[in-house]
Amino acid sequence: MEQALEQARLAEQRGEVPIGAVLVSSTGDLLAADGNRIVELKDPTAHAEMNVIRSASKILQNERLDGCDLYITLEPCAMCAQAISLARIRRVYFAADDPKGGGVHYGSRVFSHPTCHHKPEVYDGIKADEAQALLKDFFAKKRKAE
Amino acid sequence: MEQALEQARLAEQRGEVPIGAVLVSSTGDLLAADGNRIVELKDPTAHAEMNVIRSASKILQNERLDGCDLYITLEPCAMCAQAISLARIRRVYFAADDPKGGGVHYGSRVFSHPTCHHKPEVYDGIKADEAQALLKDFFAKKRKAE
Repeated sequence: MEQALEQARLAEQRGEVPIGAVLVSSTGDLLAADGNRIVELKDPTAHAEMNVIRSASKILQNERLDGCDLYITLEPCAMCAQAISLARIRRVYFAADDPKGGGVHYGSRVFSHPTCHHKPEVYDGIKADEAQALLKDFFAKKRKAE
Repeated sequence: MEQALEQARLAEQRGEVPIGAVLVSSTGDLLAADGNRIVELKDPTAHAEMNVIRSASKILQNERLDGCDLYITLEPCAMCAQAISLARIRRVYFAADDPKGGGVHYGSRVFSHPTCHHKPEVYDGIKADEAQALLKDFFAKKRKAE
């Protein structure tokens, strides 16, 4: 999670919302680490989770990431949660909850439906305060600048 | 929708599940047309809808596709539905319902939650029989080959 937080800080330096993600293989090797790149790439789908899933799939030359684990600084939205399911990721560890945009504990609750074909194990609240502080600072600074 | 179906047929020729999508600008210009490329790109997120959203955002150099309309041959999954919301797409027209994997009328029902910040207008059932026939044929052939 420390590496995911580092990616969140790097994202902030690029002017992105500070969210980071890290994908680890079933043998514990780091496959991909990235943050949001929505503004940079002009791509509404370039969330940190999507970026590492796409990178890792390319590296492994496999559209299924069986046995891989994902670390994220914020609860994934419905897009990222469904991508996690489609990629067959084994475990998801995330830091802060996201009552406004989350798709795991809130809103769409993507993993909670009988039609969700693959449900990862979910572990939340890891370094949540640190992740949340990054986001709060970012939005406070943004409001001040407006 | 005819062009989306053509993209679905092209996807099938590439060995992909036959699903196609077309993105049209607010002035009616064709921005992007594509089908699934999951197998080809080894990318679990390379659904037809995601491909055209990413292409169109790049073309317009804008992560928001305000006023754009999306035509799809199948009800989008939760990933694609959330991407549609994030991209601020105005109208979604889709052909066949997808009770097993859909995320609009079924499962996650992404646009139905108060935390969904942008809900597009949704029109379904357009050329649904044709889209469904393509999918049925594809899976029947696949089962036969196994």
